[in-house]
Amino acid sequence: MLTVKAVKALQKADLILYDRLVSAEVLAVANPAAEFRNAGKGFGEQDAVQCWILEELFAAARSGKTVARLKGGDPFVFGRGGEEWLALRQNGIEVEVIPGVTSALAVPGLAGVPVTFRGISRGFTVLTGHCSNLDETEWSRYAACETLVILMGVKRRAAIARSLIAAGRPARQAVAFIERGTTPSERVVVTTLAEVASGLIDVAAPAVFVVGDVVEMRRALVGAVEDEVFVTAPAA
Amino acid sequence: MLTVKAVKALQKADLILYDRLVSAEVLAVANPAAEFRNAGKGFGEQDAVQCWILEELFAAARSGKTVARLKGGDPFVFGRGGEEWLALRQNGIEVEVIPGVTSALAVPGLAGVPVTFRGISRGFTVLTGHCSNLDETEWSRYAACETLVILMGVKRRAAIARSLIAAGRPARQAVAFIERGTTPSERVVVTTLAEVASGLIDVAAPAVFVVGDVVEMRRALVGAVEDEVFVTAPAA
Repeated sequence: MLTVKAVKALQKADLILYDRLVSAEVLAVANPAAEFRNAGKGFGEQDAVQCWILEELFAAARSGKTVARLKGGDPFVFGRGGEEWLALRQNGIEVEVIPGVTSALAVPGLAGVPVTFRGISRGFTVLTGHCSNLDETEWSRYAACETLVILMGVKRRAAIARSLIAAGRPARQAVAFIERGTTPSERVVVTTLAEVASGLIDVAAPAVFVVGDVVEMRRALVGAVEDEVFVTAPAA
Repeated sequence: MLTVKAVKALQKADLILYDRLVSAEVLAVANPAAEFRNAGKGFGEQDAVQCWILEELFAAARSGKTVARLKGGDPFVFGRGGEEWLALRQNGIEVEVIPGVTSALAVPGLAGVPVTFRGISRGFTVLTGHCSNLDETEWSRYAACETLVILMGVKRRAAIARSLIAAGRPARQAVAFIERGTTPSERVVVTTLAEVASGLIDVAAPAVFVVGDVVEMRRALVGAVEDEVFVTAPAA
């Protein structure tokens, strides 16, 4: 799902600085003579690695290299794409942005969960699961969104579900987690907010967490599938 | 900005049913022996054309043709992608979904307006400008979103800006309209909600309408540019 423009950029780069979520299949289309460096970040070491990434980009650009900074997901959706662009600009380095397919929309879409659907959802909100500091007003606002897409929300899923229910979202609201979306090992868990809040739903990161009635479109769009886990909500 | 997968699908299709916003450059990569049909919708005739599109898809599929249904924008973001998929499935027609780059995110991003930016915006909401029936509670919720991306909002821009201000968004809030995003005739208008509410800001559809502090990143990310119109908000 790379764009033609992205393939061309990868083919002429001298250095490919890629993220943890970038697949070997994607790297295989790049210039084989290029240097490949993994800039993947583990949990908790983000800031140190981010400094290292910028130093790598500055050093390569100063030595005249063309660098492809290859990000998984969408660099402008909690991906620090804007930050890297700004730092490079401030150091006089030329930047060309090549947008890609956004995981927040394409992963649910391919799994049969369109983020909008006439008569069901007239809009959607994307937020990060690293949201432990939200207050009640903010949760009320998110709870009222027709479709809510949460990225990086696997770890805190039970707390998020409890906050949404406390803020007025029905406990029986349909929820989907799409694990490793678009890869051959994709697994979709369809359940309810109540079940997620109970802490009993097993999900592995990375997964896109979708809350909304659009989740119920999945059955009609892709049919019943083996990887789906339907959990019955406890009687209210 | 087509994906490699989309190019392959266009090259093997017998019929290309394309939308109004699809460029000649994109059509040029398709199978030259294919039949090309324009399914573009003008304002106000959507439902009739939608019926015609479905009939075309059904007829082509029944006669054994491979159809590429090529949508501009994102078919799952107010694009009836889910509806077409559902109707085809219900008629026993096989569907493969090939996601593309989403205009709601890529158009602002390329114009130097990242939808999220650490310290400025922790999330974003996308809504349609065809939203005349929203009540005060809904406007309050949208007014509180850090970044708001409005598609198809050019026609009703003044009413939308007035509703957001009435619901508590500061009148001096930065706003950008990106007209004909990603095309050679792209034009960016940077202004304030107050100016848009006044009805004096001239914008031509199609344009992506972005409300939020992230708009102020544009100057740092892409520098001052000729196509930009800065309008000073009237003294409060």
